[in-house]
Amino acid sequence: MNSLMSGCGAEPGLITVDQALNLILQKPQSLATESLGVNRALNRYLAQDVYAAINLPLFSQSAVDGYALCAQSAIEPRSEFKLIGEIRAGQQDELQLQAGQAVRIFTGAKIPFGTTTVARQEIVKLIDSGKIEITENLKANADIRDVGEEISIGQLLANRGQLLSVGAIASLSMAGIQSVEVFKYPKVAVVITGDEVAESVADFTAGKIFDANGPLIEAWFQNAGQQVEIFHVADTEDAVQALIQELSASHDLILTTGGVSVGDYDFIRPVALDLGFEQLFWKVKQKPGKPMFFAELTRDDCTRCYLLGLPGNPAAVYVGMQIYTATLLSALQGQKQQPNWFSAVLTHDLKMDSRERFLRMSASFDQSVLKVKSLSKQQSHMLSNLMQANCLVRIPAGKSLAEGDIVQGLFIH
Amino acid sequence: MNSLMSGCGAEPGLITVDQALNLILQKPQSLATESLGVNRALNRYLAQDVYAAINLPLFSQSAVDGYALCAQSAIEPRSEFKLIGEIRAGQQDELQLQAGQAVRIFTGAKIPFGTTTVARQEIVKLIDSGKIEITENLKANADIRDVGEEISIGQLLANRGQLLSVGAIASLSMAGIQSVEVFKYPKVAVVITGDEVAESVADFTAGKIFDANGPLIEAWFQNAGQQVEIFHVADTEDAVQALIQELSASHDLILTTGGVSVGDYDFIRPVALDLGFEQLFWKVKQKPGKPMFFAELTRDDCTRCYLLGLPGNPAAVYVGMQIYTATLLSALQGQKQQPNWFSAVLTHDLKMDSRERFLRMSASFDQSVLKVKSLSKQQSHMLSNLMQANCLVRIPAGKSLAEGDIVQGLFIH
Repeated sequence: MNSLMSGCGAEPGLITVDQALNLILQKPQSLATESLGVNRALNRYLAQDVYAAINLPLFSQSAVDGYALCAQSAIEPRSEFKLIGEIRAGQQDELQLQAGQAVRIFTGAKIPFGTTTVARQEIVKLIDSGKIEITENLKANADIRDVGEEISIGQLLANRGQLLSVGAIASLSMAGIQSVEVFKYPKVAVVITGDEVAESVADFTAGKIFDANGPLIEAWFQNAGQQVEIFHVADTEDAVQALIQELSASHDLILTTGGVSVGDYDFIRPVALDLGFEQLFWKVKQKPGKPMFFAELTRDDCTRCYLLGLPGNPAAVYVGMQIYTATLLSALQGQKQQPNWFSAVLTHDLKMDSRERFLRMSASFDQSVLKVKSLSKQQSHMLSNLMQANCLVRIPAGKSLAEGDIVQGLFIH
Repeated sequence: MNSLMSGCGAEPGLITVDQALNLILQKPQSLATESLGVNRALNRYLAQDVYAAINLPLFSQSAVDGYALCAQSAIEPRSEFKLIGEIRAGQQDELQLQAGQAVRIFTGAKIPFGTTTVARQEIVKLIDSGKIEITENLKANADIRDVGEEISIGQLLANRGQLLSVGAIASLSMAGIQSVEVFKYPKVAVVITGDEVAESVADFTAGKIFDANGPLIEAWFQNAGQQVEIFHVADTEDAVQALIQELSASHDLILTTGGVSVGDYDFIRPVALDLGFEQLFWKVKQKPGKPMFFAELTRDDCTRCYLLGLPGNPAAVYVGMQIYTATLLSALQGQKQQPNWFSAVLTHDLKMDSRERFLRMSASFDQSVLKVKSLSKQQSHMLSNLMQANCLVRIPAGKSLAEGDIVQGLFIH
């Protein structure tokens, strides 16, 4: 028993949430990069700038279904043109328009040489099969998408570090980009500690509980489009040591739940230190999740394995995943950015706590102002309010807040 | 050529964005339900209320590492207790504490019969192997999590319609729920029309373009954790007819891109009507995406197939997926709710347009107020600003907006 380790958050040595986040952002070196087909790169981060290899549009084309015209002067109502052919999207035609000639054309089709403007079909009357009449005034260069007007060859399409969102994937695909250099996604192993986790329904009568942490972490990664290996380990030093040693040789990140406090059966930290991990921090002045542990192992080949030890209470695991694991995973992919905090107005008073808190809240917009309201059942062993919560809100340590105060938070999904 | 179909959005018969969304929400009947393991139900919607089959906590337990005590009166500093054993988390013990006795106990462990309070280890001094001393005043029932204090047996855990987010999955798992009744996810086929789409790099010199729509839709579903089949079809009536007929027999939803306007090679709508689809709407007074088409086929067994025909311009496809397809997919799973619009302050003036617009913008919080700023390159054949955009913003039709006006929008990912 160590009298420095009080439960109230006042002990020396605790770091703040911001300090913990900064260590998680700054300490890890980025993983290696790999070349992936664009269709496999969703939600990865670019490791290189991407430049356009083509113009966009690729050629000057019609923006509408209508007629490409060649006119030497302004076009007035009742102007007539001789119809000499048709060009569909996807067709290449060597047609050369002369003054007074027109070609039937469709959206996206390449305009023929000599085109001075395009008349959309709504302002065109077909007089006979060989002749059309324009019914309105028409400017030069109307409804033409010019070659390269969006992007020209050699122009920067996307920066190193760009998140390859759905829209980014679509945009790169349109520019003919087939593959991209991206940071590797960390190879993650998850270790669930705790003899109290029931293995079966029958089991739970004997002082055991159902495991929330394994399903929580599995679903979290599934939501991010990733699969992870989940290991359950008994609360013995030997079992923990054997597993962590094995995983540390083959993984970029070991996430653990439980076993990081100062209890007699909390083996994660002593085992990690014994295996050569360097402690980057232990204990954060926060609620839930105070005993969180973060450490780094440098292997013989100079690559590294990180261990993020989350406490065992499921609310601490939830906060740990949404705030810290998410930040760490993107830091390992070269992103040195804080979580994407929103700011919002608190709709009620809140009592002081000596530790910074992450409260599960309900957020909604009121005339452009984001307002947040705390939910009941915030204790670290409770999760049921996650049915209603849509955000985690940071409440600073050591001061009481009043209705109308501004707080930071993160949307959760 | 139909003179009713003008390009300016003024023609009669166009419906508004809200009318289109309401039809997409109200028309579809919900799909059948299925029973799934909780670990396979992420991001599905519950088809039945879920009630707790156990108490949470399952038994009264210690909230800390410390000592379970039996005391007949208030505990003052220097009170001594006789240590008679130890209970770890996950252990069942038939110990019965008598007044003056204590048991070493760990977080989550079941407290023994006779426990009146728990002393966290930080306020306990071990005098010798058989005796402890409490160093502070201690109330009755301290640091005990009472059986059922979060949820009691039979209580409603989650409502029909609940989205099974990561937090919801964790919460159900903790309550020992093994499987849930959820709405089936729609079986979706995607049809990309357009002879202009290049099949290979060599192809694109011949008036063709790279396909953005297929990769866009594939990535969108991948981001939602779903896989869809993507078909490319030539711009001939026979090819479109054969494919739509086949898919309509086996799928809940056919998403198409292109071929829904009034061009001579726009076959999606006539083919669908010919195959017995009933038109629910055609053309929405919006930009991009005016010629959007929505139709329903009732099959012989009374099940239905929906067809959502998106225009071919990639920005129209993007808006179509984020706004309309997302709404339709959740409507098919029993959710009759509008997109989750935010409200935000516009940071600049905007000119009037006769159609409602969805503009790609950058949103950020300023002291709890969400502010949005439009990006350049908004035309319907352009996508490159999706590298920067984090939202789509609705700009009402027929009026100019000023800096400071409030607008609705949707975050995109």
